[in-house]
Amino acid sequence: MSWPDRRFLDLVGIEAPIVQAPMAGAGGVDLAVGAMRGGALGSLPCAMLTPEQIGQQVAEARALAKGPINLNFFCHTMPPAPDDGAWRKLLQPFYGEYGVEPSNAAGTLRLPFDEAMAEAVETVRPEAVSFHFGLPAAPLLARVKAIGTLLIGNATSLAEARWLAERGVDAIIAQGWEAGGHAGRFLPARPEAQMGLIALLPQIADAVDVPVIAAGGIGDARGIAAALTLGASAVQLGTAYLHCPESLISAAHRSALGTEAAERTLFTNLMTGGLARGLPVRLIEELGPVHAEAPPYPYASTALAPLRKASEERGKIDFSPAWSGQAARLGVSLPAAELTRKLAAEAHALLGRVTEEA
Amino acid sequence: MSWPDRRFLDLVGIEAPIVQAPMAGAGGVDLAVGAMRGGALGSLPCAMLTPEQIGQQVAEARALAKGPINLNFFCHTMPPAPDDGAWRKLLQPFYGEYGVEPSNAAGTLRLPFDEAMAEAVETVRPEAVSFHFGLPAAPLLARVKAIGTLLIGNATSLAEARWLAERGVDAIIAQGWEAGGHAGRFLPARPEAQMGLIALLPQIADAVDVPVIAAGGIGDARGIAAALTLGASAVQLGTAYLHCPESLISAAHRSALGTEAAERTLFTNLMTGGLARGLPVRLIEELGPVHAEAPPYPYASTALAPLRKASEERGKIDFSPAWSGQAARLGVSLPAAELTRKLAAEAHALLGRVTEEA
Repeated sequence: MSWPDRRFLDLVGIEAPIVQAPMAGAGGVDLAVGAMRGGALGSLPCAMLTPEQIGQQVAEARALAKGPINLNFFCHTMPPAPDDGAWRKLLQPFYGEYGVEPSNAAGTLRLPFDEAMAEAVETVRPEAVSFHFGLPAAPLLARVKAIGTLLIGNATSLAEARWLAERGVDAIIAQGWEAGGHAGRFLPARPEAQMGLIALLPQIADAVDVPVIAAGGIGDARGIAAALTLGASAVQLGTAYLHCPESLISAAHRSALGTEAAERTLFTNLMTGGLARGLPVRLIEELGPVHAEAPPYPYASTALAPLRKASEERGKIDFSPAWSGQAARLGVSLPAAELTRKLAAEAHALLGRVTEEA
Repeated sequence: MSWPDRRFLDLVGIEAPIVQAPMAGAGGVDLAVGAMRGGALGSLPCAMLTPEQIGQQVAEARALAKGPINLNFFCHTMPPAPDDGAWRKLLQPFYGEYGVEPSNAAGTLRLPFDEAMAEAVETVRPEAVSFHFGLPAAPLLARVKAIGTLLIGNATSLAEARWLAERGVDAIIAQGWEAGGHAGRFLPARPEAQMGLIALLPQIADAVDVPVIAAGGIGDARGIAAALTLGASAVQLGTAYLHCPESLISAAHRSALGTEAAERTLFTNLMTGGLARGLPVRLIEELGPVHAEAPPYPYASTALAPLRKASEERGKIDFSPAWSGQAARLGVSLPAAELTRKLAAEAHALLGRVTEEA
């Protein structure tokens, strides 16, 4: 198919201008495999995996689908484990209501890219690696570069896009205000100054020489065609894939994505300590979305864990990170491969471009 | 020219799918005339005008340009004039620095649509009337409808779009998070839940039967083509027209629109009491963008007036409402007619549509 800008497609070797977004906890091997079969770049979120699990998941995906695969890592700085007493005090009424005890078991925290993960990357040699919250330190980055993997950075601002371009990434994700999950902000900025995609994307495309991948609020083929018109070489879709049967989200989360609540997503720091966009679940409605008492990223999830468990056992998501971008209601529930092919074909038709003759 | 959706163009009788945004204080007759000459719908902001001034400005514009004209009014509820003592106390250090006295002269406040304005509309019979912050009360609205004027409402959410459609407006502006100036929110909602245009626009287009006008973060032809691809029948451009020589903004405001500060616009209530997006001028940087001490809309401007005057006399905008959307840096300085024609032609070319044969 002809597309306005084939640079990213040719770099990574895909046919549909779509990256299936890595979503820690919400997408695994099955979702990546479906997206790959549909012609997209499949992604595995690795921030909550051990190096062994990374190896296993890549092997599974490769056994089930052809095509390139993207591994996603986080690059945040881990602060020392904080005293979360004030946070637990704020949650105390909910502990009482559910009759649960605040636990100290940290559960699976989101961890930054490190030596062991670099070794895993060297072993499995993925076609692409994407980083969230900046880039790893130079020696770690050099190891990833050395194996010829395509490097993808994530920018929430023009300043971050320029920073990433200077450090030699091969492609840059322009993450708009609309995007679900954690905003990847890594340079000092007011969170509320984040641009919507229609403003951010063309400005980043003008500012850097590498291909740009548009992310945030793209819910259907209209959004894909619009993003390509604005200067993107591809789009990254997260929430659109949450509707797929292969996603790992709870039934309550899945169902809420189709309700009026999905028109009111907002950034909250209550779930992890970092600002991430999600549905306005009960905890957010009752406390407000942002609290200074929530410990720094990624530690807020620890004290919340027993409440989340108790609520989910009742089929609810009152204390769960129900991430969602702003276009959830545009989504449809289709198997990932079928969804990928449908979106690519419809976007292609919207762009009014004819398929090249055979 | 052929466009994807000619409904709004045919309703109002324009050739370019562009509405020049009404901008109180920043655009007057000259800007509207330039936009009209270029083929757009020209707009006159009327919230700060007397009925006599409305009549004069419409007559001037009609003498200078052909084509339809849009009058814009506000529909906020005026609270009683508040005690702004806490606000003045917060500003005290600045009064001291500039050696000015806080004045009680309200200056020109933004006023809601009333009987006198309805009479002015009946007299001048504009082709279109757009309302911000909802709609006027039913009897006033009926008077505007009775003269056959095209009614345009402004929605910042799906709920507001449905509300406007139920009340019989002829077209709806989808105002995205990116838009400069006052967000037209009029139904209860968290301001930070406002959607970016790429998410809001297709959802509103799906939800209502009337044509949709896209506003917010559209800085050049790419944004126009993208908005039309997302389902808009036209776009409304504000910041793009601020760069024109016909706009009434100060030299300092004009120049700042091209700087890095224009990448960091944010919503502030310091200038009027209502949340409006603008450049991070000194007052915002020093106090933070939102303060509970600022009196309710539109009263915050009163205590600020002497500081604004003193700063502008020094060629600065440290206390001025330097409104800007998020795509200011994409703009170019051209006369409004030329800008309108250029944007329409480039968007048309981007959409890959051929001009109909003569």
